[in-house]
Amino acid sequence: MPPQPDLPDPAHHDVDSMLSRKFGREVANYFSGSPLNRVSFLRADHGFISKALVHPSTSFLLLNDLAPLAKDPTKLAYATHSEVKLLIGENPFEKTEEQMIKEYNSSVTLPLVLFLGLDERKKDGFEHGIYSGSPYFAVDVTPKGTLEKEAKGVIEAMKAKDLQFVEGRMHMTLNAPEAAIYAQARALIDWNARNPFCGGCGQPTLSVNAGTKRVCPPTDFASLPTAQGGATSVEAKPRERAACATRKGVSNLSFPRTDPTVIMAVVSHDSKRVLLGRQRRWPPHWYSTLAGFCEPAESVEEAVRREVWEESGVLLGRVVIHSTQPWPYPANLMIGAIGQALPDGEKIHLEHDPELEDAKWVEMDEIREALRVGTSGLGEGPGEGYKEGGLRLPPKTAIANQLLRAVTGGFLGEAPKI
Amino acid sequence: MPPQPDLPDPAHHDVDSMLSRKFGREVANYFSGSPLNRVSFLRADHGFISKALVHPSTSFLLLNDLAPLAKDPTKLAYATHSEVKLLIGENPFEKTEEQMIKEYNSSVTLPLVLFLGLDERKKDGFEHGIYSGSPYFAVDVTPKGTLEKEAKGVIEAMKAKDLQFVEGRMHMTLNAPEAAIYAQARALIDWNARNPFCGGCGQPTLSVNAGTKRVCPPTDFASLPTAQGGATSVEAKPRERAACATRKGVSNLSFPRTDPTVIMAVVSHDSKRVLLGRQRRWPPHWYSTLAGFCEPAESVEEAVRREVWEESGVLLGRVVIHSTQPWPYPANLMIGAIGQALPDGEKIHLEHDPELEDAKWVEMDEIREALRVGTSGLGEGPGEGYKEGGLRLPPKTAIANQLLRAVTGGFLGEAPKI
Ligand SMILES: [Zn+2]
Ligand SMILES: [Zn+2]
Repeated sequence: MPPQPDLPDPAHHDVDSMLSRKFGREVANYFSGSPLNRVSFLRADHGFISKALVHPSTSFLLLNDLAPLAKDPTKLAYATHSEVKLLIGENPFEKTEEQMIKEYNSSVTLPLVLFLGLDERKKDGFEHGIYSGSPYFAVDVTPKGTLEKEAKGVIEAMKAKDLQFVEGRMHMTLNAPEAAIYAQARALIDWNARNPFCGGCGQPTLSVNAGTKRVCPPTDFASLPTAQGGATSVEAKPRERAACATRKGVSNLSFPRTDPTVIMAVVSHDSKRVLLGRQRRWPPHWYSTLAGFCEPAESVEEAVRREVWEESGVLLGRVVIHSTQPWPYPANLMIGAIGQALPDGEKIHLEHDPELEDAKWVEMDEIREALRVGTSGLGEGPGEGYKEGGLRLPPKTAIANQLLRAVTGGFLGEAPKI
Repeated sequence: MPPQPDLPDPAHHDVDSMLSRKFGREVANYFSGSPLNRVSFLRADHGFISKALVHPSTSFLLLNDLAPLAKDPTKLAYATHSEVKLLIGENPFEKTEEQMIKEYNSSVTLPLVLFLGLDERKKDGFEHGIYSGSPYFAVDVTPKGTLEKEAKGVIEAMKAKDLQFVEGRMHMTLNAPEAAIYAQARALIDWNARNPFCGGCGQPTLSVNAGTKRVCPPTDFASLPTAQGGATSVEAKPRERAACATRKGVSNLSFPRTDPTVIMAVVSHDSKRVLLGRQRRWPPHWYSTLAGFCEPAESVEEAVRREVWEESGVLLGRVVIHSTQPWPYPANLMIGAIGQALPDGEKIHLEHDPELEDAKWVEMDEIREALRVGTSGLGEGPGEGYKEGGLRLPPKTAIANQLLRAVTGGFLGEAPKI
């Protein structure tokens, strides 16, 4: 499997390669660095998935309305197969995908069971050919449809064990490897929940590939009388559904969506200052780097220049990509870049796209000081040593923080000043 | 507006900045480098859009089933407002978006008119506040729905002028700035065409924001009797539609989708060889870099390592992002990276995910020679000087070619050998 970083220390891959010597160590941002090997090519192999599902070493992460089951805010909790059986049944992967599509019945809610991967650090006996490690699954236990009662039963049983579903939009207190596991589960369960219908034809879709694909079946048993929430009769003939473009060849509508976004530390042409901006809803003195969505048919470098100009009026020359961060709220890929202003392009103009309340150029030393004493999440107070009125910045778990560390450190080619 | 590269020469932004000195010139890949300023913040301003639509300097790029109107395979052709009026009407932006949503009638086909941006190199008299340049729009002239006849009329009129819609999936013969304009038009028109229905509720959606957003209206006049394909009666009361999650707050389902992909030149731990792979359907001796889709909740660096391991068994240490390329078939963002193998991770294993017919390590000199004489599109013959049996590689318009130029040139820190 791919070598895995030991987060939060980004000192992995400390190999004396040409790339490491020239570009330095890799920054492993929060939500990346999963310890799981996704073995993505095995997802459609229901023999493999069925075997992994029932292995004694297998862990089930449960999400209720996207809130993960946890021991405490720093640590996830996992259920066993026997604890989720009430909701998912003995084995939802018993039939092949082909058979599931043939038997599709839109009036029956199927449980969403997502295969996450194998933790190869744990050699607890699960093996499949040359692959081994402890299997991880995620299950959506949000009560809904014909499985509402069963989902509630699982939730109650977990609460009776003194476990809780950690509410709140951000889960930035989780330890780093589990934050990456949660991010994967959240992004895919949310994508399935947001897309119960086909964008191409408007008909309901079916989750396949162990939770990582949705297909638009050509037939549906739903119009036929069925037992209340029970199995469909395979003898009865299903109705044909309307034609759909996603059934011809490969369509991106069948696969999860990830929205690329750009976030950039902009330095002045003389490399002495950094451009920061703030939104009205942020706490006083709190600033960050600029950011925005990539548009269709633009390169990342173009998106960085467009967003910086639209939001601040500043014109950029060279743009270099620094590192990236998955951001599962709901499905972003943050592409962190560093850009340098043109000598005659540093004038700030906030009126093109009035998204920011303020943007300003800040001296490197002020940013270094704020990185030392003024970082925190949006809802928290600043760190020890912070003086009222001083600059506040995002925490280490945000890629904005890592980009600011890079430009005030050695990234631009000068010796670090701290 | 953001400074624009003069493609195909990537020598733009040749500013003596710290970033340029440390990282060299930026590679501007084909399909990037649009000469248009998108002024994205003005798209919902129908006063601005209406004025731009009818200006004498305005150009309309027409796409018929995604094939662009062209003078010849290297140059696009544009229509005037009077030439597209038959299909789009005098002004489809006359009403506000709010009014269009209120009057939504799913039985009436509305023309898809996409605002692309302003070409600020051309100062032909169009001005709007501090913004100026020649406006560009794209129109989907694919005959469909209640506008089939009108669309056919526009197509026939263009053919009568000896212009043609250039068929074929790839349009890599277009000059670079127009390739970027076409990419923007194609990506957005295709996204609108692929998503006539809401993935959240299955009901039909309405295009707004000058072609860059689709909303799920709360009401529909469609169930009421209307004139054949004509205007709806605003006195009649529309029916309420089913609730939809996309109407609460901001949903990514309302915005165009772009799929991030990774493509990577992998060098051996001693920087002497490069890993190449080939698919069965490619011509003999034709190889390229490995590539694949980013998955939800993984960083680009992780996606690069996962894909390389899944496809070739090779284990990577450091991964650095080199440049990016929009790829409008249909909606990819290619993120080009360079990765270096771990000393004990260079053994090739093709059986994890048997996508490739072959993968092999190739000496730098052989790649340099192939870049000189063996590059071409998949359907073309190799260049002059190519010797039968020699390595063949993708053309300069492909980011794979640029990545291979980088690793055989100075990117790894050695002096270029060519
Ligand atoms: Zn469909
Ligand atoms: Zn909807």
